[in-house]
Amino acid sequence: MQLSDEHYMQQALREARLAGEEGEVPIGAVVVMNGQIIGRGHNQVETLNDCTAHAEMIALTAAFNTLGSKYIMDATIYVTLEPCVMCSGALYWSKIGRVVYGAQDEKNGYRRVTGATSPFHPKTKIEHGLFAEECLQLVKDFFAARR
Amino acid sequence: MQLSDEHYMQQALREARLAGEEGEVPIGAVVVMNGQIIGRGHNQVETLNDCTAHAEMIALTAAFNTLGSKYIMDATIYVTLEPCVMCSGALYWSKIGRVVYGAQDEKNGYRRVTGATSPFHPKTKIEHGLFAEECLQLVKDFFAARR
Repeated sequence: MQLSDEHYMQQALREARLAGEEGEVPIGAVVVMNGQIIGRGHNQVETLNDCTAHAEMIALTAAFNTLGSKYIMDATIYVTLEPCVMCSGALYWSKIGRVVYGAQDEKNGYRRVTGATSPFHPKTKIEHGLFAEECLQLVKDFFAARR
Repeated sequence: MQLSDEHYMQQALREARLAGEEGEVPIGAVVVMNGQIIGRGHNQVETLNDCTAHAEMIALTAAFNTLGSKYIMDATIYVTLEPCVMCSGALYWSKIGRVVYGAQDEKNGYRRVTGATSPFHPKTKIEHGLFAEECLQLVKDFFAARR
């Protein structure tokens, strides 16, 4: 059964909420191939005391483990926030087929650094805007509650 | 005792050779703080079946674990090859004080994508060229042997 992009972004949002419950900036991601979620992750920077433990990195490594493959050309990652430079570089190496992110991140998104040059693999399709408001509101609420 | 940059880059080269012996592209890194190596790593992309398992990512995570801190402002990373986009993004998040890399990487180095915009933290000092020839030759020999 092929479920919709909306379904999978809701799964990414669920991961984001898990992060928030753990005191982490609420960002979540799922990697999907052939209608199956093959990797999930949420931000765990504080929990793991590791500034590289972003949702995408964790979801990607889970996907590689699931498949026993270090490339995932036929997969899509759904992530609630625009990937940072590190995560866009990781997605490049993975040769992932499609990146769907929710909200843009003007401060830490990859575009701030890479400008007009795409950091992704030439064959990777990039889309954004799905549940953007919901994705961003989670992050805004998180920081508002801490002020 | 404070040892020289040359000493630590030789340690990074040692890590790179370990990678080569394991059938990995020979790239190595060490993270140093107050004269102590607090993290080491070599490329393990094939071994771990994970395209994000670069020398720098492994050395950084080791350093965070050693210190119990996710920022390493007072540390230097020595890496044999110019970091890729992913690793430069990871180094950004770490707020590392200094990045010393050996050889430039025209194909996969961060500069190809980031152009004139530095992907690193504004306070991070970047140097390169230390044992550049030796660092690059290791990689060249690796690929020559596989052709």
